[in-house]
Amino acid sequence: MSGAPPLHPDRLFAANERERDVARELYQTVKDLPIISPHGHTDPQWFAEDVRFADPAALLIKPDHYLIRLLYSRGVSLERLGLEPIDGRAGRDVEQDSRAVWRAFAENYHLFRGTPSRLWFDHALMSVFDIHERLAPGNADQLYDQIDAQLDTQPFRPRALFDRFNIEFLATTEDPLDDLRHHDAISRSNWNGKVTTTYRPDNVTNPETPDFMAHIRRLGELTGEHTETWQGYLTAHRKRRAYFIDRGATATDHGHPTPVTSDLSDVECEALYAKAIAGSLSAQEAELFRGQTMTEMAAMSIDDGLVMQIHPGVYRNHNAALFSRFGRDKGGDLPVKTDFIHALKPLLDKFGNDPRLSIILFTLDETTYARELAPLAGHYPCLTLGPPWWFHDSAEGMLRYKRQIFETAGFYNTAGFNDDTRAFLSIPARHDVARRMDCRHLAELVCDHRLDEDEAFELAGELANGLVRRAYRLDRSAP
Amino acid sequence: MSGAPPLHPDRLFAANERERDVARELYQTVKDLPIISPHGHTDPQWFAEDVRFADPAALLIKPDHYLIRLLYSRGVSLERLGLEPIDGRAGRDVEQDSRAVWRAFAENYHLFRGTPSRLWFDHALMSVFDIHERLAPGNADQLYDQIDAQLDTQPFRPRALFDRFNIEFLATTEDPLDDLRHHDAISRSNWNGKVTTTYRPDNVTNPETPDFMAHIRRLGELTGEHTETWQGYLTAHRKRRAYFIDRGATATDHGHPTPVTSDLSDVECEALYAKAIAGSLSAQEAELFRGQTMTEMAAMSIDDGLVMQIHPGVYRNHNAALFSRFGRDKGGDLPVKTDFIHALKPLLDKFGNDPRLSIILFTLDETTYARELAPLAGHYPCLTLGPPWWFHDSAEGMLRYKRQIFETAGFYNTAGFNDDTRAFLSIPARHDVARRMDCRHLAELVCDHRLDEDEAFELAGELANGLVRRAYRLDRSAP
Amino acid sequence: MSGAPPLHPDRLFAANERERDVARELYQTVKDLPIISPHGHTDPQWFAEDVRFADPAALLIKPDHYLIRLLYSRGVSLERLGLEPIDGRAGRDVEQDSRAVWRAFAENYHLFRGTPSRLWFDHALMSVFDIHERLAPGNADQLYDQIDAQLDTQPFRPRALFDRFNIEFLATTEDPLDDLRHHDAISRSNWNGKVTTTYRPDNVTNPETPDFMAHIRRLGELTGEHTETWQGYLTAHRKRRAYFIDRGATATDHGHPTPVTSDLSDVECEALYAKAIAGSLSAQEAELFRGQTMTEMAAMSIDDGLVMQIHPGVYRNHNAALFSRFGRDKGGDLPVKTDFIHALKPLLDKFGNDPRLSIILFTLDETTYARELAPLAGHYPCLTLGPPWWFHDSAEGMLRYKRQIFETAGFYNTAGFNDDTRAFLSIPARHDVARRMDCRHLAELVCDHRLDEDEAFELAGELANGLVRRAYRLDRSAP
Repeated sequence: MSGAPPLHPDRLFAANERERDVARELYQTVKDLPIISPHGHTDPQWFAEDVRFADPAALLIKPDHYLIRLLYSRGVSLERLGLEPIDGRAGRDVEQDSRAVWRAFAENYHLFRGTPSRLWFDHALMSVFDIHERLAPGNADQLYDQIDAQLDTQPFRPRALFDRFNIEFLATTEDPLDDLRHHDAISRSNWNGKVTTTYRPDNVTNPETPDFMAHIRRLGELTGEHTETWQGYLTAHRKRRAYFIDRGATATDHGHPTPVTSDLSDVECEALYAKAIAGSLSAQEAELFRGQTMTEMAAMSIDDGLVMQIHPGVYRNHNAALFSRFGRDKGGDLPVKTDFIHALKPLLDKFGNDPRLSIILFTLDETTYARELAPLAGHYPCLTLGPPWWFHDSAEGMLRYKRQIFETAGFYNTAGFNDDTRAFLSIPARHDVARRMDCRHLAELVCDHRLDEDEAFELAGELANGLVRRAYRLDRSAP
Repeated sequence: MSGAPPLHPDRLFAANERERDVARELYQTVKDLPIISPHGHTDPQWFAEDVRFADPAALLIKPDHYLIRLLYSRGVSLERLGLEPIDGRAGRDVEQDSRAVWRAFAENYHLFRGTPSRLWFDHALMSVFDIHERLAPGNADQLYDQIDAQLDTQPFRPRALFDRFNIEFLATTEDPLDDLRHHDAISRSNWNGKVTTTYRPDNVTNPETPDFMAHIRRLGELTGEHTETWQGYLTAHRKRRAYFIDRGATATDHGHPTPVTSDLSDVECEALYAKAIAGSLSAQEAELFRGQTMTEMAAMSIDDGLVMQIHPGVYRNHNAALFSRFGRDKGGDLPVKTDFIHALKPLLDKFGNDPRLSIILFTLDETTYARELAPLAGHYPCLTLGPPWWFHDSAEGMLRYKRQIFETAGFYNTAGFNDDTRAFLSIPARHDVARRMDCRHLAELVCDHRLDEDEAFELAGELANGLVRRAYRLDRSAP
Repeated sequence: MSGAPPLHPDRLFAANERERDVARELYQTVKDLPIISPHGHTDPQWFAEDVRFADPAALLIKPDHYLIRLLYSRGVSLERLGLEPIDGRAGRDVEQDSRAVWRAFAENYHLFRGTPSRLWFDHALMSVFDIHERLAPGNADQLYDQIDAQLDTQPFRPRALFDRFNIEFLATTEDPLDDLRHHDAISRSNWNGKVTTTYRPDNVTNPETPDFMAHIRRLGELTGEHTETWQGYLTAHRKRRAYFIDRGATATDHGHPTPVTSDLSDVECEALYAKAIAGSLSAQEAELFRGQTMTEMAAMSIDDGLVMQIHPGVYRNHNAALFSRFGRDKGGDLPVKTDFIHALKPLLDKFGNDPRLSIILFTLDETTYARELAPLAGHYPCLTLGPPWWFHDSAEGMLRYKRQIFETAGFYNTAGFNDDTRAFLSIPARHDVARRMDCRHLAELVCDHRLDEDEAFELAGELANGLVRRAYRLDRSAP
């Protein structure tokens, strides 16, 4: 096994030779295009401070919830992976040696067979660290040392990697209470990397967030607005949005449990808001409140031009025991059934035909692709569809998406690819997988004679760069 | 690009050469079979009066809600497409020049890449107008002129096209209040084309239809029945069904929001009907009423032999503003989640084992294919499955249907293809796509050795003609 | 047709030659591995008494609900298939001649084109009876005679077939009131076949089962426990589980209408149980009660090591008239929408992180594969996913499962294959289909370069034997 490169140059292309030939040709035209990453969760501090990544496990394993959850599902404890509990019961059993964590991962690397994580990890080893063998218990130490030694060098600092990855634009995600100091530091630096932010106000729009009222107070302090009133609350949003826009933001992001929207009268809004800040909303009222904030965000987007992203339908922290011991993002987030047709109607009734509004929809419920999302985006001018998300950001997930979306919504109602990752080194891998799958699918259409070849070449470029640039209005991003 | 035929003779067949060879051979045996179109929405007036189609845009673009909705979704206004508002605010901005509408379409033809509309449109250009190049801004005027000139000639009149298309049977869809004068005119003419009707009583079975009570009164006038009573209402249905049967109808069609059925006592029916004609039903009672009419229609079908078609699960006119300005069928119809297992039980409990009853089920919720529809049709003698419908009448939609339906329901519990179209020129294209996809799928089974070749040839013919003839009882159609 | 073998050696492999080559090589390594059948519904009496199977129709047609339902759906009455009514209206019309039943089946054999039943039936004819032609009206009598003659001989007795099929382990399914006399007889015999049982307590955990209270009383008699109390009821379960474990059981099985679980206090449990045995539970309380028994079963599994299987989401006996005339398992069982995320949470909150617990989940609602089941199994240590079940135990069903499950859950959170059949002769066929589809899918991953070839060979063996052995803890089975 060792010695052979784990990643084949034709990987992810169809086995059929005619389709593969077309896919190869298409891929040649897009593989070196710059990476546009308009939505993700990398840490801006990396690019602000540009310090060495601590070690291979801290860089590649511990922050990757895809890896953590699958290891946990097969009996590898989070303590063994070196994750620190947050529940005060400090773990003597928490592995402190990063090399031991790396070994535990190598021992279980077979668990990732057939998963996208495997493709991304192999890609990072190969393209970032020039390692062309499969991780295994037998080479774990050697690979750890190779990576660790490279992390010591200047070309493996965050900014150097960002440049090497050919990233043209990267947006992180922050909440309205964030001061964006890291973004400011990047701006002030002599580095030219374009790292912006995204306005993600869930912690002040979802009254079921822990410490909601403290967040509302802090929002008031930051903006000098009376956030104990509905109008003050809305004005505070407008001010923080402007603050984010000043730092290059072109989009907002919303991760409520459902895509529900509401359209209440001012009087109703004021009454509901009073109960929200009093902490006395019922579950149903909380849903109504979240829904109303979505419609308010749409109204503000019409004014200030921020594109709205909606990422609904996640049951967060389903594993109660694990959540209370280790906190969020440890794998206990699970998709739930989602309805868009009824949920979005109040917002669409109000703004659905306004040419100034742009909303990008995501889902973890694939049953909505052909039934709801493609018909919605194939009709309403304000709607665009984001790429397959999270669990579905995978080869098969992309094929399901393409085959269920494009026939009804066309290509031009979609928003290209985004990586949505906190794993920095997986960014080139994820975009490469996406471009390969684009080319595979386009080749399929060409070989079925559903699409002419010249059109496929044009669409490959659109899917890699054009659609995402326009969908996220990147031409509007402040410097 | 121009010069090259846009439609390849092997289009839609798999890229794999072995599968393609088998598909080609199968296709040769079905491509010239007559078209049977047992369900659709073409205008019988065309065939009754046989006058020239007005112009290329009026024929090919304006009435096609597939085209309208996708253009609208990318910012092309309905006014620019020449659609007249119905809200009294007569539009000075409404494009009156059909050539300008055609140009707007040509400018946006790239939006249709990968959609079935693209395949249908190219097919109409090629097979009807002998145009072998792709529509584009550069050739828009020239193609407009070519088409318009041909429309002037006798071979492009509706009846001549009907004959050229080799249509053996075509059913339009009318409501019970229609006098079917166009069908009568066709019958009285010396033309031999078989154009019948379908009994679609939604406007007198759905109490939430606008002007429901006026329809009920009109139903009474037409039949001489006291439609203010439940029994009179039922008798009126029976008389109108007989009227439709006299004009060749073999089927009814039902497009309620859900497939709910009910089985109430006479006393309950009478009370519910009294509230219906008083306009005082709650939403839940309206659903119950619609459900009861389904069961009554089934009872009548057992007597008079009309096949029932059920097309449920559409949220009609979702875009309120567009609907109020332009009326129905402008793209704001969206699929919703549908349940068949519980919804059909009252009707099935009553009539599900009656060999005289035949019901053809359709869905826009593909999640029901493998979970509900195939198991239902694979058990109940009265149930047959209609082809993939509307948004799913596409290459990928057909593959999903075939792969999810046939393993559980077999081929013989399905009803062949129907085009369900108001776009007359798309009829040959749609049937051609269906036959190609049939052959592609059968070739796949032959090459996987899941089906013997002789069986595949037999099934190709069944899928093109045999199943639909039997499912719609075409041998019973009055002359 | 006749003369040609109906089953091709490459059947079910992809048409693409490269994939087929890899699939063939993989298949060579697994085709002769022993069959492990950890879940099914064969009759232990066959192996206890080892008497001649009555005749071809009684062996191959009458007990197979897959065949019965599809024949019935196309108008073949159950009477014509020789099924005896149970409603007391003894049928003069019930076919008594097994040869006539066989002929009726042969006349309708075309109905099974494209279904898995067709593959299984052809496989049984070929591999068990050495018949290499397709059943048809013309050869029905001849094939009947060939089969019937062979059934007369020793090699076609149940035990001889079991040995010939190379079955290493077979578990039947019994309820807690079963005395397992047939299993005891097998143990006492000089035959070495491993036939164990599975603890399926639905008839004492589902208070909506007919005769529930009689079952509870009988449970008390068998165990000497006061089953009129909640604690006595639980102890009785523990005793019967031990009884089953003594006879080799390694698993329980649960077929409630939904996967709902509950976690009530002792006081609540006692009150609910009192209402259950008084027969006064509401539908909602019955659901709560079933949910509580699931959590109790999990607690007992933690103690005694039995693996829990959950088979939820079936609407049993949907066809009321047919059920009342012929009883259960006649094709009127239909899948319904299923939710796992909320339903399992009470049980998972209590035991989801306990390494001693193992739960195997099944579904008939494929929409839950990618949305719920793969994310659940890819996180919770106690959860494993069973193979595609019932209607989805088919070539296409397996591909859908593999493509939706493995990317998120990996291979190692799945439980291999089980046949779940009451049709003894279909066991080798079903396992062969599963192994072929495993190899087809692995070959696809290898040719797409998503998996290395050495890994594919290892996984083929895991999917055929390794995963199922570990998932069902077969090393713990009592002798």
